[in-house]
Amino acid sequence: MTIEQGKILDELKDLLAERRFIELRKLLLEQHEKDIADFLDELSPDTAALLFRMLRKDQAAEVFAYLDNDSQEFLISAFSDQEVSEMIETLYLDDAVDMIEELPANAVKRVLQLATPQTRKLINHYLKYPEDSAGSIMTSEYTRLTKGMTVKEAIEYIRHYGEDRETIYTCYVTSASRILEGVVTVRDLLLSDDDDLVKDIMDPDVIKVYTTEDQERVALLFHHYDFLALPVVDIEKRLVGIVTIDDALDVVHEEATEDFEIMAAMSPSEKPYLKTSVWEHAKNRSTWLFVLMISATISGAILNRYENAFMVLPVLVTFMPMLTDTGGNAGSQSSTLIIRGMALDEIKFSDLGIVIWKEFRIGILVGLGLAIVNFLRIYFLIKVSFPVALVVSLALFITVILSKLTGSILPVLARAVNLDPAIMAAPLITTIVDAAALILYFQIASRLLHISI
Amino acid sequence: MTIEQGKILDELKDLLAERRFIELRKLLLEQHEKDIADFLDELSPDTAALLFRMLRKDQAAEVFAYLDNDSQEFLISAFSDQEVSEMIETLYLDDAVDMIEELPANAVKRVLQLATPQTRKLINHYLKYPEDSAGSIMTSEYTRLTKGMTVKEAIEYIRHYGEDRETIYTCYVTSASRILEGVVTVRDLLLSDDDDLVKDIMDPDVIKVYTTEDQERVALLFHHYDFLALPVVDIEKRLVGIVTIDDALDVVHEEATEDFEIMAAMSPSEKPYLKTSVWEHAKNRSTWLFVLMISATISGAILNRYENAFMVLPVLVTFMPMLTDTGGNAGSQSSTLIIRGMALDEIKFSDLGIVIWKEFRIGILVGLGLAIVNFLRIYFLIKVSFPVALVVSLALFITVILSKLTGSILPVLARAVNLDPAIMAAPLITTIVDAAALILYFQIASRLLHISI
Repeated sequence: MTIEQGKILDELKDLLAERRFIELRKLLLEQHEKDIADFLDELSPDTAALLFRMLRKDQAAEVFAYLDNDSQEFLISAFSDQEVSEMIETLYLDDAVDMIEELPANAVKRVLQLATPQTRKLINHYLKYPEDSAGSIMTSEYTRLTKGMTVKEAIEYIRHYGEDRETIYTCYVTSASRILEGVVTVRDLLLSDDDDLVKDIMDPDVIKVYTTEDQERVALLFHHYDFLALPVVDIEKRLVGIVTIDDALDVVHEEATEDFEIMAAMSPSEKPYLKTSVWEHAKNRSTWLFVLMISATISGAILNRYENAFMVLPVLVTFMPMLTDTGGNAGSQSSTLIIRGMALDEIKFSDLGIVIWKEFRIGILVGLGLAIVNFLRIYFLIKVSFPVALVVSLALFITVILSKLTGSILPVLARAVNLDPAIMAAPLITTIVDAAALILYFQIASRLLHISI
Repeated sequence: MTIEQGKILDELKDLLAERRFIELRKLLLEQHEKDIADFLDELSPDTAALLFRMLRKDQAAEVFAYLDNDSQEFLISAFSDQEVSEMIETLYLDDAVDMIEELPANAVKRVLQLATPQTRKLINHYLKYPEDSAGSIMTSEYTRLTKGMTVKEAIEYIRHYGEDRETIYTCYVTSASRILEGVVTVRDLLLSDDDDLVKDIMDPDVIKVYTTEDQERVALLFHHYDFLALPVVDIEKRLVGIVTIDDALDVVHEEATEDFEIMAAMSPSEKPYLKTSVWEHAKNRSTWLFVLMISATISGAILNRYENAFMVLPVLVTFMPMLTDTGGNAGSQSSTLIIRGMALDEIKFSDLGIVIWKEFRIGILVGLGLAIVNFLRIYFLIKVSFPVALVVSLALFITVILSKLTGSILPVLARAVNLDPAIMAAPLITTIVDAAALILYFQIASRLLHISI
């Protein structure tokens, strides 16, 4: 929302509070459908339903599509059968499917009963595509042309039938049996002569995806090729739908958020933070915290084994947090870059060798720098003995290299065994690196300082 | 890239190796401009230049825009003056500016000398916009209509002048002095009658941004409103350019990557992982590692103070990693959600109270669960004494609550003082929480177990 939109929102609220409905309606109708929906979402359900009925018919469906699930559910329950029926037929198919996926079972039943048989069949078909697949985010409202049309005919066709199409800007050319033969943009059509044939200006090398393709990969294709729409075909290569750029953009945000959540050791959730209940938040966060808490006791067991070392030389304990934290940070830097690189398709399994060699050298550079600074600091400032300063700095140097390697190799291996690489992020890397760093530290200490363990 | 594109890439490489240039050219020309650019980027500069000259004129500029900086630089140096001049005039202005920003100074000089005075002036103007502002990603090639045009005239205007426009699908209506008066899409035009006037079908409530607007906010507007293009105005509200959805999508990826990097304690870099040198990687990662290493010694100092406690009861040391790791993880879960929520504009400073109250309750739920499991495990399995089990579990419970609060409050405060909230992520939170957890732990231990400290 821009600042201006924010001001208008306040004005709308004032008009509502003063019940000046005529002015309210006038100002409301001037707003973008998304802003109208956001405004309605903030009101009590009854007030929202009241204002919703004030909208122009041509706005209502679009506003409805932008409403959050709770508001949609309330409106559906408040609508007459006639209104439900009209709404479901006016909505774009992908918006209708999105809504139905979130409605409670009895509302779904009512909506499907009130839809025309054809719409019902389409919706049921769409509901079958696996979650997060191209099929689940596509819409069937695309513009279909045939090879033999002239540019003039094509433009007339679009002008006549375009109203119902989610995007008219990318048109697909298919055979009678719906096999995808080419793609032509409205731009191509407008910039050609009226008498040119569609088959001569279309691009026959269409980049397409299958219904089962992962939505994340679909979104990457939009990023890669700067498309406005991408055709989706079934296994017989028949055109069944299109994905539009607005849905691809939603996927990009959704997938990035999911990665952020998994990388911070949470079960991913599609709900915004403020709309998620305390209970759900606690549930999403607990599983991994339990697993990691149990794993962290490995470090405890290791410390148990080296009890003698820190009884003899308690100062060793004071450097533990610095050592394990730095190892954890160094490792999660690497894992973050690799996970992100793989999500953007910039790093592949076949790059593993290059990655390891790169991280090894980076580890040496960074580790050396940190070890030297650390040595100077604890020897001259904290004034520990020379051998202790050496032990701590040497352990730090090797820990950094080891952490970089662990942090870069594990995400790539995860992908290789079909796990989400994002699991191999800071929390897990930290736990693994903690244990390794402590063993290293006390082993070096016991050897160089001649402490029996 | 889809699997099919991958196969074609291999085929192109084979044809090149066998020097079958005629077939190579034929197959190459059929590919999407982005795929041609990716293919050329992988070749030696000389071979790439050779193949680039085989492209059709209408493809060349688009392929050039997709090439990476190194390839662009080589081509510019290999081009004749005539070729440079043609290329700079054919490129979309935003692509030309992107290229010039990355070229070495002498190449920039040559390019600007070979551009027409008008193009040179425009480029120089664009180069002045701050990095990451709307001005820096906009293009001036947009379609401008006037109120008095009929739909027929508008469509004819687009058909005549559309060739040079980056997007023709969203057209802007301006006054003679370029004040933005309305927006009309090609869809609106095509679905209206030929005799309708532009002023009657345009939407006069145009959502626009200023040239100085942050690109991240611009990208959020695309996400919010499902736009294909967004107009950019100067402080006098005159239309100076448009941002198109493909550039907004690039920004979304770029900003998410930047957040991932900052949140993993790195200086952000726009270069892909594999194209960044070992030296640059080491540089990007060192600063924060140094800062965090020094900060982690606070924990060391705290441990120093409680040396007596763990000399008396060494078992206390073995639970330190579990305690600090769990605290770190619990805190970074919260900070990640808050940082992401603020990046998507779902959480604002005014929500701070709600956030604190929410996190407090989540902390109690999660902390209680973890503390109980931990108590049972260490009392019955590891068989520590009852008071020690109580001390560890109590410290864990309070640490989790404290971590959740720290992790959620710090990012919001960072935004309030105009720092990037992403700084307040796992690494910094872990360091802070470590120190707090250790103080808590040893204070509780000394009181409940009556150890003098």
